[in-house]
Formats: sequence, structure tokens, C-alpha cells
Amino acid sequence: MKTRAAVALEAGKPLEIMEVNLEGPKAGEVLVEIKATGICHTDEFTRSGADPEGLFPAILGHEGAGVVVEVGEGVTSLKPGDHVIPLYTPECRECASCLSGKTNLCTRIRATQGQGVMPDGTTRFSMLDGTPIHHYMGCSTFANHTVLPEISLAKVREDAPFDKICYIGCGVTTGIGAVINTAGVEIGSTAAVFGLGGIGLNVIQGLRMAGADKIIGVDINPEKKAMAERFGMTHFVNPKEIEGSVVAHIVEMTKTEFDQTGGVDYSFDATGNVQVMRDALECTHRGWGQSIIIGVAPAGAEISTRPFQLVTGRVWKGTAFGGAKGRTDVPKIVDWYMDGKIEIDPMITHTLSLDEINHGFDLMHEGKSIRAVVTF
Amino acid sequence: MKTRAAVALEAGKPLEIMEVNLEGPKAGEVLVEIKATGICHTDEFTRSGADPEGLFPAILGHEGAGVVVEVGEGVTSLKPGDHVIPLYTPECRECASCLSGKTNLCTRIRATQGQGVMPDGTTRFSMLDGTPIHHYMGCSTFANHTVLPEISLAKVREDAPFDKICYIGCGVTTGIGAVINTAGVEIGSTAAVFGLGGIGLNVIQGLRMAGADKIIGVDINPEKKAMAERFGMTHFVNPKEIEGSVVAHIVEMTKTEFDQTGGVDYSFDATGNVQVMRDALECTHRGWGQSIIIGVAPAGAEISTRPFQLVTGRVWKGTAFGGAKGRTDVPKIVDWYMDGKIEIDPMITHTLSLDEINHGFDLMHEGKSIRAVVTF
Ligand SMILES: NC(=O)c1ccc[n+]([C@@H]2O[C@H](COP(=O)([O-])OP(=O)(O)OC[C@H]3O[C@@H](n4cnc5c(N)ncnc54)[C@H](O)[C@@H]3O)[C@@H](O)[C@H]2O)c1
Ligand SMILES: NC(=O)c1ccc[n+]([C@@H]2O[C@H](COP(=O)([O-])OP(=O)(O)OC[C@H]3O[C@@H](n4cnc5c(N)ncnc54)[C@H](O)[C@@H]3O)[C@@H](O)[C@H]2O)c1
Ligand SMILES: [Zn+2]
Ligand SMILES: [Zn+2]
Ligand SMILES: [Zn+2]
Ligand SMILES: [Zn+2]
Repeated sequence: MKTRAAVALEAGKPLEIMEVNLEGPKAGEVLVEIKATGICHTDEFTRSGADPEGLFPAILGHEGAGVVVEVGEGVTSLKPGDHVIPLYTPECRECASCLSGKTNLCTRIRATQGQGVMPDGTTRFSMLDGTPIHHYMGCSTFANHTVLPEISLAKVREDAPFDKICYIGCGVTTGIGAVINTAGVEIGSTAAVFGLGGIGLNVIQGLRMAGADKIIGVDINPEKKAMAERFGMTHFVNPKEIEGSVVAHIVEMTKTEFDQTGGVDYSFDATGNVQVMRDALECTHRGWGQSIIIGVAPAGAEISTRPFQLVTGRVWKGTAFGGAKGRTDVPKIVDWYMDGKIEIDPMITHTLSLDEINHGFDLMHEGKSIRAVVTF
Repeated sequence: MKTRAAVALEAGKPLEIMEVNLEGPKAGEVLVEIKATGICHTDEFTRSGADPEGLFPAILGHEGAGVVVEVGEGVTSLKPGDHVIPLYTPECRECASCLSGKTNLCTRIRATQGQGVMPDGTTRFSMLDGTPIHHYMGCSTFANHTVLPEISLAKVREDAPFDKICYIGCGVTTGIGAVINTAGVEIGSTAAVFGLGGIGLNVIQGLRMAGADKIIGVDINPEKKAMAERFGMTHFVNPKEIEGSVVAHIVEMTKTEFDQTGGVDYSFDATGNVQVMRDALECTHRGWGQSIIIGVAPAGAEISTRPFQLVTGRVWKGTAFGGAKGRTDVPKIVDWYMDGKIEIDPMITHTLSLDEINHGFDLMHEGKSIRAVVTF
């Protein structure tokens, strides 16, 4: 069949909207009609050429929602008409990682997904002249139709709006999952969130849901304050407006009469800046503070600290897709959204057509959008 | 009263054996007759002048065992004749840290202990000419008698030999506790231990007790192999004798038919070398590997890695005194020794008199001792 897609032909160039060929689903695969897709920093990381492992031409996009059109041989968990969210972190429920019970990082199709192909080693997309087009993160949601492995699709309820729940395919789950799955925040905790973009906001609403008492937001852009408060931030720190280091400042803010040590129980980096990651670790409480890295650093950048920070009881962790097992957890997060336990609508700041997708990247660059969503 | 002690008069000088004055215990304090004390790298760190916070003159030593001679006003948990192990990490059971249930790093007397004085801000030791002598790590076990806060003493059974259980006051508890308290190693785990000195051997016997399947020891000194095997090491790696990196080597060693990712579930640094700490992190399993820093790095040294290592599920931790709550856990570890669950005797390689204490430091420097113990 043919479908319309935004294709990244070359690193650093705008995406080109065009008709492409799409082969039907092979065994274990599913053809999905994409109804909406978010535009994310990770897409931009690849589009811009910053990702050393980026492949071209490719159909980017990994934050989608849509409807199953056709299933390949042997697919048992999905049927035409099912509503689905694509998963860049699949959940096969059979590999050593899935069965470990300790991680969401399924390894079943890791090698082929990284190479921009389906598990059988080939691509379903091609240009009208026959040139193969790479898949991206196993999703390629910047196309009106796409093919994915069955294990890369979460089945979700049918009354949820595509143009909102597509964000659950990345930022919402990442931010909330970092709190719930990776950190395991308890009621009454104190926390600091560095970076109040889309990820930071979702961390904040995860903390509110987890019952945290003090939720300190840190951003160098004061315009981020109002929205963060709406999602549950209780204190705002702008590192440019304080005297001394942000670490010392947060330690002071968290001292109590009973506990003069100070420091937050949990901190989260949602900036991708390695110096911020260090501050996030060092502002946690001696003895038990945990810091979770969510942000993606530039290629080659390294984090560092004195080992004494860890020897005195701090824990340094990271999270990918919020530690969520996609097929199991994503449907629950859709329920939370539909039940009003979490909010997404205020984060979807722009809705565009596929033809306007490059404008969506501009909005992200200018910091004007939290999330721009393309609807088909 | 007067007692005999090894005094560190100046940084970098040998200790001097002399008579010193010792005031009796004030309120909340206890006078202890030290029967045996180990000589540790931490004492040497201060003696040599490498510790920027070292104070002189001081009576060093923190791995002791002895008998209560006299208790100060208000002391209720100890009485003359009780056998005790001094604790450089006290356990007050009242401060925010003790009550958190999340850490062993009691903060009750942290400030004064760091300043080499008792909680009231004064020292009990002085030279015969009246010059005050600093306490060390709240213990000062290189003296035949010493005064400690009640909260810095673990009461232990009376049939345990002082010249062996003194090591429970540091290395034994640190190594075993890192496995049990900090890592929480489960039966069937795989682990790598970097550095097969006294700490590494105790990590290994902790792993054996915890039921680890594969216990990989790493040391650049091949002479460490035999003793490590005696304590439970199942595989030995000498980084100087392999091709390629020790990380890649350990990842290969831990691949199984079912799990082709490779990497150990837990790793431990017992070298104090920051490059080794990085290797220890990076050889753990993607998704769930935990690395525990035990070694003490040189002043100012920093650890680093790419944040991707953490984002893909590895956890970086550290441990001080093995996460053990001294008054609660040390008596149990003494029981384990007396019941034969753990071994200490082969680690006490040398027993010296106080007059020979500087020879004990030489043995440590030459790598000839695992632990040299001074008996009174
Ligand atoms: N680990 C994962 O699974 C995962 C998933 C999605 C996104 N991410 C990453 O999360 C990060 C955040 O994503 P986002 O969509 O929220 O981005 P965003 O650009 O919308 O937000 C980043 C925020 O950080 C703030 N900031 C920048 N430098 C700062 C500093 N030095 N101190 C304090 N604040 C600072 C910015 O002002 C901005 O508000 C990105 O690195 C992204 O790649 C990770
Ligand atoms: N965190 C704590 O509470 C705590 C308590 C006590 C001791 N320590 C620290 O633990 C560390 C180990 O103490 P120890 O008494 O076992 O010391 P040790 O000197 O007896 O043993 C260190 C071992 O590491 C090996 N080694 C050195 N460099 C190496 C390398 N690059 N690769 C592999 N092996 C290497 C040496 O050959 C030696 O066998 C020290 O740094 C000490 O200060 C920490
Ligand atoms: Zn994304
Ligand atoms: Zn899997
Ligand atoms: Zn010691
Ligand atoms: Zn305490």
C-alpha cells in the first residue's frame, strides 16, 4: 500500500512530506493507522544529526496513538480495530530481561530496532523509487500508517482521545514512571525536579500522585513556574536568581528543626545537562537520597562526582521510559488519564497537520511548546 | 589516670609509644580497657598526612575490642565488665538518621567526632605536660584505655576472642554489610569483587553467605587468589593477564545461553581507585546491575561515567561501615563468627605488641598482612 509520511532524508534537513510504499505486516507484525503523534527532543536529536547512530533516510516519530488495521500471521493479542500506543521499549514477556522482573528493558528485538529494521532484518517502508527507508525506534509514527512488531504495541481503551494519549507513548510515562517505578517515592517525601519542560511536569504530577510533601522545581527559565505549580510544584528555584550554589540552596530549604542535615529524599534530572545531573545528586539527603537521571546527555558527555557522595549513602540511578513495561503499564496510565488522576491536556500546547510538522520542530526549539502533536 | 598509647604527634611521622593522661568518663561516656586493635588503611591515611582533615597530636585506631571499666553518669546500657567493640559510626537511636530506618549514618555526634573531641567539645587525653591529644574517629583504640560515648559501643558476648573480633569493628562488618545491607544480594546472584585485600575477602564471604552463584574476584596481584578462593571466590581475573578490558571480559564470563547480555548482578569496589570504580559499575548487567563503592579514594579524586550507563538501568551506590547499625548489627556478626558462619582467623595474619605498632604499618605497606592486630 501507499501512505503519507514525513521523511528524514538527510541529517540536518527539514523533514519532507511525501507518499511512500508500505508493505503489509509479516508474521508477528501489525499494521497500524496512526491518528496522532507527538514531536519529541529524541526525534530532533536524530533529525539534526547529533545522534552518532542516526540512520537516513528514515521515518522518525515515536509518540503515537492509532488503530490496528491488519495483523500478520501468529499475532494473537491484537485484532483490527483495537486502539494502540506504539512502544519504543517493547515488552516480549519472554526474554531474560522481561522475565527478570527487575527491568523494563526488553532485549528481544534490540539489535534490529537499533538498525532501523523489523525483526526479520528488512524494512517495510520504501520511497516510490524503491529506496528502502529505515524504521525509527521500532515505531516511525511520522507516517499515517506504520508496521510494528506485536510486542511493541500497548492495547488501550477506545474512548481515550488519540491526540492526548499519544504523549503517554513517551513523556508522560517517562516522568510518572521515574517517580513510581524507578525511585519508588513514598508518601511524605521531599523531592527536587531539575528542568520544568514536559518531562519535568510529568515528574511533578507523578510526585503529587505519590504523595510527596515538598516538590521543588528548578529551572533557569522563570516562565516555567506557573505551569509547574499547576501540576503540583510547591517551591520554585531559579539558579540564576539565588546566591551561592543550587545544591546549598536546596539543602537549606529542606532542613527542619528535627533534621538539620537537609537535602531532598529524591531528585530528578529532566534537563540532559551533566552538570545539572551532578547538582541533582549532591542536593539529595546524606544517608538515603536517590537521584534519577532522565535527561539524555549530548553524545560523549560524562557525569562525575566525588565517590564520598555515594559512600555517605546517596544513590545514583537512571530511567528509560520510566521503568515502565509498555504493554502492562501504558494501558493503566491511559486509565489514570481518563479517570482524572493525571492531566495531559494542558501539556498539548499545539496541534498541527502532517504538512506543518517542521513548524512543530521550530516551536520546540523556541521553547514555545510543551508538546506539539500532529494529527492525521 | 595514666595509660599507654601510640601517639601520632605529627603527620608523616611514626607513632610514639608513651604514657598519657586519661580523664575518667563524663556523663554519657564509658571508660574501656582496649584488649586488641587492628591497624587499618584509614589510620594510615591520617598518620601519613594524606587526610586533609587530619588533626595532630592524636591517638589513632578504630578497630578495637575491650572491656568496660567504668561508666559515666546516666549510662544505662553498659556496666563494668561488659565486653564491647568501639564504633566509629555510632547508633544513638534518636536522631533523624537513626529514626529514618534508611541509613546507619547517625548524625548525633558527627560534628564533635570530626573535630577529634568528645560530645562536650573537650578531649579526655593529654600528654604528661598537659597538651591535649585529639580523639580519632570517636574511638582512639591505639591506647590501652580510652573513653567513648555510650552510643559508640556495641556490647558483645564474653566468650569471643578480642584479637579476632576487633576486626568486626571495621573491615568484617564493612565487607559483609556491603553485601547484605547495601546491595541486598539475593540467592543465585552473580557478583564481581574488585580488590582482594581484607575488605574484598569479607565481601566474598558475605556473598557466599548470601548464596551468590558466581563470585568473580579481580586483583592485579595474583598472590591474592588462593586466600580469596578459601573465602568463596569462584573465578579469578587478573586485569594484567587478560586481553582487552576487564569490563568486556567480565561481561563475556557472565553470558549464558538464555541471557546474552552479560554483566554481573552486583559489583563491589574494594580498591579505592576511581578508574576501578568505573569498571565496577560498567561490568554490571544492563537493566538492574548495582555497583557498590567501598574503597576510599584519594582526596579530590572523582568518579565518572556516561549517564547512559545509569539510564540503561545500572545503579551506583556506596557504603560506609557496610550500612550496619553498630549497636544492633555488630553483636550479631560476633555471633556469626562464634557460630562458624563467617571466618576471621585466617585474616589476622600478624599479632604484635603496642611497641611493635609501627611495624604493623610497614607490613600493611608491603602488602604482607591482611590484618595486623596489636594486643595489650
Ligand atoms: N530517559 C528517558 O526515557 C527520556 C524520555 C524522553 C525524554 N528524555 C529527555 O528528558 C529531557 C527533558 O525533556 P523535555 O521534553 O522536558 O525537554 P524541554 O526542553 O521541554 O525541557 C527542558 C527544561 O530544562 C530547563 N533547563 C535547561 N538547562 C537547565 C539548567 N541548567 N538548570 C535548570 N533547568 C534547565 C529548560 O529551561 C527547560 O524548561 C531531555 O533530555 C530528553 O531527551 C528522556
Ligand atoms: N567504606 C568503608 O566503610 C570502608 C571501611 C574500611 C576500609 N575501606 C576502604 O576499602 C579499601 C580496601 O581496603 P583493604 O583493607 O581491603 O585494602 P588492601 O590494600 O588490603 O586491599 C586492596 C587490594 O586491591 C588490589 N588492587 C589495587 N589496585 C587494583 C586495581 N587497579 N585493580 C584490581 N585490584 C587492585 C590490591 O592488590 C589489594 O589486594 C580501602 O580503600 C579502604 O580505605 C572502606
Ligand atoms: Zn519522546
Ligand atoms: Zn523481552
Ligand atoms: Zn578500618
Ligand atoms: Zn543517631
